Amino acid sequence: MTGQGPLKLGMVGGGNDAFIGAVHRIAARIDGEFTLVAGALSSTPERAQASGAALGLAEDRIYDDFKAMAIREARLKEGIDAVAIVTPNHMHYPAAREFLKRGIHVICDKPLTATLSEAKKLVKAAQESEALFVLTHNYTGYPMIRQARQMIAEGALGDLRVVQAEYPQDWLTEAEEAQDNKQAEWRTDPARSGAGGCVGDIGTHAFNLLSFVTGLKTESLAADLQTFVPGRRLDDNVHVMMRFNGGARGMLWSSQVAPGNENALKLRVYGSKGGLEWAQEDPNYLWFTPFGEPKRLLTRGGVGATGVAERLTRTPGGHPEGYLEGFANIYSEAATAIRAKNAGDHIPADLHFPTVEDGLAGVQFIDACVRSSNRNGAWTSF
Amino acid sequence: MTGQGPLKLGMVGGGNDAFIGAVHRIAARIDGEFTLVAGALSSTPERAQASGAALGLAEDRIYDDFKAMAIREARLKEGIDAVAIVTPNHMHYPAAREFLKRGIHVICDKPLTATLSEAKKLVKAAQESEALFVLTHNYTGYPMIRQARQMIAEGALGDLRVVQAEYPQDWLTEAEEAQDNKQAEWRTDPARSGAGGCVGDIGTHAFNLLSFVTGLKTESLAADLQTFVPGRRLDDNVHVMMRFNGGARGMLWSSQVAPGNENALKLRVYGSKGGLEWAQEDPNYLWFTPFGEPKRLLTRGGVGATGVAERLTRTPGGHPEGYLEGFANIYSEAATAIRAKNAGDHIPADLHFPTVEDGLAGVQFIDACVRSSNRNGAWTSF
Amino acid sequence: MTGQGPLKLGMVGGGNDAFIGAVHRIAARIDGEFTLVAGALSSTPERAQASGAALGLAEDRIYDDFKAMAIREARLKEGIDAVAIVTPNHMHYPAAREFLKRGIHVICDKPLTATLSEAKKLVKAAQESEALFVLTHNYTGYPMIRQARQMIAEGALGDLRVVQAEYPQDWLTEAEEAQDNKQAEWRTDPARSGAGGCVGDIGTHAFNLLSFVTGLKTESLAADLQTFVPGRRLDDNVHVMMRFNGGARGMLWSSQVAPGNENALKLRVYGSKGGLEWAQEDPNYLWFTPFGEPKRLLTRGGVGATGVAERLTRTPGGHPEGYLEGFANIYSEAATAIRAKNAGDHIPADLHFPTVEDGLAGVQFIDACVRSSNRNGAWTSF
Amino acid sequence: MTGQGPLKLGMVGGGNDAFIGAVHRIAARIDGEFTLVAGALSSTPERAQASGAALGLAEDRIYDDFKAMAIREARLKEGIDAVAIVTPNHMHYPAAREFLKRGIHVICDKPLTATLSEAKKLVKAAQESEALFVLTHNYTGYPMIRQARQMIAEGALGDLRVVQAEYPQDWLTEAEEAQDNKQAEWRTDPARSGAGGCVGDIGTHAFNLLSFVTGLKTESLAADLQTFVPGRRLDDNVHVMMRFNGGARGMLWSSQVAPGNENALKLRVYGSKGGLEWAQEDPNYLWFTPFGEPKRLLTRGGVGATGVAERLTRTPGGHPEGYLEGFANIYSEAATAIRAKNAGDHIPADLHFPTVEDGLAGVQFIDACVRSSNRNGAWTSF
Repeated sequence: MTGQGPLKLGMVGGGNDAFIGAVHRIAARIDGEFTLVAGALSSTPERAQASGAALGLAEDRIYDDFKAMAIREARLKEGIDAVAIVTPNHMHYPAAREFLKRGIHVICDKPLTATLSEAKKLVKAAQESEALFVLTHNYTGYPMIRQARQMIAEGALGDLRVVQAEYPQDWLTEAEEAQDNKQAEWRTDPARSGAGGCVGDIGTHAFNLLSFVTGLKTESLAADLQTFVPGRRLDDNVHVMMRFNGGARGMLWSSQVAPGNENALKLRVYGSKGGLEWAQEDPNYLWFTPFGEPKRLLTRGGVGATGVAERLTRTPGGHPEGYLEGFANIYSEAATAIRAKNAGDHIPADLHFPTVEDGLAGVQFIDACVRSSNRNGAWTSF
Repeated sequence: MTGQGPLKLGMVGGGNDAFIGAVHRIAARIDGEFTLVAGALSSTPERAQASGAALGLAEDRIYDDFKAMAIREARLKEGIDAVAIVTPNHMHYPAAREFLKRGIHVICDKPLTATLSEAKKLVKAAQESEALFVLTHNYTGYPMIRQARQMIAEGALGDLRVVQAEYPQDWLTEAEEAQDNKQAEWRTDPARSGAGGCVGDIGTHAFNLLSFVTGLKTESLAADLQTFVPGRRLDDNVHVMMRFNGGARGMLWSSQVAPGNENALKLRVYGSKGGLEWAQEDPNYLWFTPFGEPKRLLTRGGVGATGVAERLTRTPGGHPEGYLEGFANIYSEAATAIRAKNAGDHIPADLHFPTVEDGLAGVQFIDACVRSSNRNGAWTSF
Repeated sequence: MTGQGPLKLGMVGGGNDAFIGAVHRIAARIDGEFTLVAGALSSTPERAQASGAALGLAEDRIYDDFKAMAIREARLKEGIDAVAIVTPNHMHYPAAREFLKRGIHVICDKPLTATLSEAKKLVKAAQESEALFVLTHNYTGYPMIRQARQMIAEGALGDLRVVQAEYPQDWLTEAEEAQDNKQAEWRTDPARSGAGGCVGDIGTHAFNLLSFVTGLKTESLAADLQTFVPGRRLDDNVHVMMRFNGGARGMLWSSQVAPGNENALKLRVYGSKGGLEWAQEDPNYLWFTPFGEPKRLLTRGGVGATGVAERLTRTPGGHPEGYLEGFANIYSEAATAIRAKNAGDHIPADLHFPTVEDGLAGVQFIDACVRSSNRNGAWTSF
Repeated sequence: MTGQGPLKLGMVGGGNDAFIGAVHRIAARIDGEFTLVAGALSSTPERAQASGAALGLAEDRIYDDFKAMAIREARLKEGIDAVAIVTPNHMHYPAAREFLKRGIHVICDKPLTATLSEAKKLVKAAQESEALFVLTHNYTGYPMIRQARQMIAEGALGDLRVVQAEYPQDWLTEAEEAQDNKQAEWRTDPARSGAGGCVGDIGTHAFNLLSFVTGLKTESLAADLQTFVPGRRLDDNVHVMMRFNGGARGMLWSSQVAPGNENALKLRVYGSKGGLEWAQEDPNYLWFTPFGEPKRLLTRGGVGATGVAERLTRTPGGHPEGYLEGFANIYSEAATAIRAKNAGDHIPADLHFPTVEDGLAGVQFIDACVRSSNRNGAWTSF
């Protein structure tokens, strides 16, 4: 929390019972950088009202409709600085557009949009706007992920060769969407999620993370998407082989039907000089093996951590930070960028929050996976 | 964050560079239950001013002196609801007394005081006050610790037999206190810390945790305190054997000179019917072995978690919560209690934040360890 | 060791400095089932002599030539019962043929042969022989692997959906074959290894293990083989997607250029009712998650182990068995089968050592991977 | 296995169903250094006969009585070179004496004897004998334990400060000795085990291991022995604080009533310059933290292993060795020593098998623990 006082935040989506809305609110609050003052928290008016009241919003800052909110907040003297968009995927573009065109900064959940054409339109809208667009691929906010990225950029692994990314979960092992589970309903509904199920919901996280950490560009991929649960309308297990610029190769597995896996995002990168391994469920640790030497445990806040990790660290080694702190790092970088932008300054070069272009790459990844899988796993460029 | 708006918090101590002050501020903020509005952040006036300004406090709510703060805030219509006391140990009692006597709720860091006589006086002051006293033995705020406590209370382990607690760190392996490290300076200074060094700083955490989880009363202990770093004035390694009511036995080891240990608080409890194991550095997991069955991994937010853990949980299984969230649980329970108290209601029975009596037990533990060690490890009751 | 006294064993290959020869000798010895009495330990006569002498073989049982050994031993009254063939791959078929045709039981290292045509000829030779053929896909000898197989066969996981197999190593990260490392030389030499490098040396182990444990038949696969180390003549990293009978899907990764991985064979299997995970470097543990329940740790020799694991277990839980004991289980099952065969009895149904048909499947796997990779990863049946 | 052929081994105790006898036989066999040719496997004649026959011993080498065996084998031209004594503790001395006096080398299980007076007599007997006495404190045979010992001796940890040893098991959580479990019966019987239960059976292992690895001499200890299971006649849980020469301090916990622990011997050593951690259930790994640097994983057979570990290593890194291989290392060192002795050579200086003096120290440790505990945990020297 700085002496300047928090930025004013609005929210679209995230009403009562929405998992990710609550996460965004905590993440916005941890470092005291944002205060929630307005919301169009649901497309159902009563739910919007009830949710806003439960969050202590002033009555006249509770909206039924994100467009009305964008219009009015843009005119208010003390209107919101930024809006968090935490709806299902298909609403990201229509909502973001309204705020971007009025110069209100947008912090948007992933994947960027439900379709590739919308993603491209959103990139254009963001590029034409004065406002910033920040995508909450939150896993890039973990300090040891930042350190991994830096180590690779500085050559600690030598020439990259092999990238193994995986993101298994198990919560859709059975037909949750038939059990009145709202989280499951929209995530398995093509109208709201787009053409990707598991590949869109979590496959994109794995793709974003590996791209962020390695700096590699995916040139082509061969995908085999499966739907194991009877009646499900989107994929629930994803197998992908990948080819990167420079000759490195990779595999990506994401699944929502792998019993025993809660949220087991994991990244392993190997090069001619060493290897790095990181697991989201133990995010404070980074395993580094310089080839020919013993494996070393680098810890957030500990002796092996470098400045790039320390900058995003709140507690000493052994005092674990978690998912919410990683998420908060994206919000705090967004705040720093917004303050710079508002002050007419350059955005500091050491901020690395995901951008609208990263979001487009994610939607291209989904699209390429679906196309490849439809063509029996043929190598597909994007 | 509830619709009622946050409680107003003041802080004593915790100026720039103080580790634990920043932790308290984040913990107070995570759930939106408190907003910091006043502070006597340092006993050095310039530092108090600079720290308050950096935190965005209004000028007239920045104090040089905690007593002046207590007096004025108690008179203000919108004065603070509660104060967080995060000074070195020797200031806990004098500061807490001023707020308690004026009916301002106190949230105080551990150990309770630097001396046993002060601890007793503070208990009296708290008992005589209308205000609440909450001690931030934060490790009791972890959801899986709450679950462990409940499982034991419900008999999952049968009759308790053996308790193994340990809390090794390594940051004082060398003479940090001679290197201008303020954290190390006061923690190794008897005038500010009291008679216990490692035993007071972290041994009390281990003692509090084992007492909280098992519900056992320590009847006597045999301690061997050591100071390994030349020139250090307080213990830096603590060995204790313990005897509990009902016949259970235990060991407690805490150390600040154990290289390779960051903050490795660990608790293991064994009974006639099963065992439980928990480690602070992986706080989302609780290992449970019903005797004669395979070991089971119970996870915060996962299928093995019970209601008592769920109540303090923000994210699903596999989305790790950490130290700050556990700390925030103490603050959020404090907020619930304060709101109940302010409303004239009973304090809900399911709150389990540490109390002033727990703090007294901790200081008695320090005192007993020092006395036992001075008597060559003789069994000492307390 | 039974009262019958050990079986008499010969060995082809495995002279001084050969890693796998020494492993076979220990594995043959652990349970006292075999005693080594003859050998054609090297194709270089002096090395054959020196190696035989070092192993304490009688002079007249040291041969320069496996064919001479087969002929003479078959005629000796006290000739060998069985021969272990531990040469590079290209010699497996020619050597095995000589012993099989003379009724001497064969225990042969993997992969079965260097070429598919030889593999088929060896199957024929084995089928026409009175003698047994045992393939040392040793990882199937681990007790908890046997238990995993049984649990799956009995439906503990429900319908199988996803199989993730991996086998990374790092010892060929640099061009060891250019450094006079004999192990690396022949493994990267197409003339001695066949068309597969990493895929033949360790990919076949992963393939064999997943087939053994799951009972699934691979219907087709899409492979991307890479050679990362300049100058290397065979693949050193293998990516494969797999489709199984009944609709399950899988991935297999094997690598010899992944720094930080010693011998990290790992198998994960997921079905509609649960998941199983096993790692070769911690072979005494099997992780089992019945969907909707906490993960359980099943341990060799411990309470979760079933009879099929117990039968191959020598020490209680917590007294770890390792690679050599797993390998010895193959030898001991071979001994049981040989004794039954020699006695004219049926081979007990509870023996599960790998057979010549399993070896053929492995060579077909190599062949399919190479063909698929050459066709740019096209799905290839086998 | 060397060209010299195996040494001839006899065994006292270890008949059918005896856990440790089977372990000794495998350990003796793994490296081909010993062949079992004679036995007095039980004090019950029929059981001795049946056990000998089951092991394939010649009829005239099966004895009812260890004394008769010692007398006859000493006279035989091809009599045993060495005897393994694997009886309950109270028979170690009477049996060992008979072989030592006749110049037959003795390999004896631990603890050395059931009483301190017998231990002293056995030391004398061993010192007066031409024959070697080897004590199977097998955990000292693990390669990474040898490496830990060497690293400490060479100063890798600086001045030693803190030693934490623990050895919990859970198999006696209930009254197994009342359930016709022979292993439990004699281990809880003072007449056969001596004055120590858990402290003798496994506490001595922990004590031996810490002494072996650190090279520290225990000057005094304070012990609290407990018996938790009703009706049990010996301790089943052991708490000890220790003071070493030079000022280092330690704790030792051993238990047989800690559910969830199979055989969890663990040693942690900390000094002024670093820390080492090792766990018997994962014996191939040694964790080393040079103070101020990241923790490193040293692996048996891997890049961090030194010569002293390599000498006792059979398989490469990642191919786990286990309990039996560690045990076999004691046998193989014994064989090397016996061959040297038989040849009239000096015993090589790099052998580190436990000796009769180590055994005496173990019995002194038991005795001191019992005395201290009887004196309410008073510090007791030994």
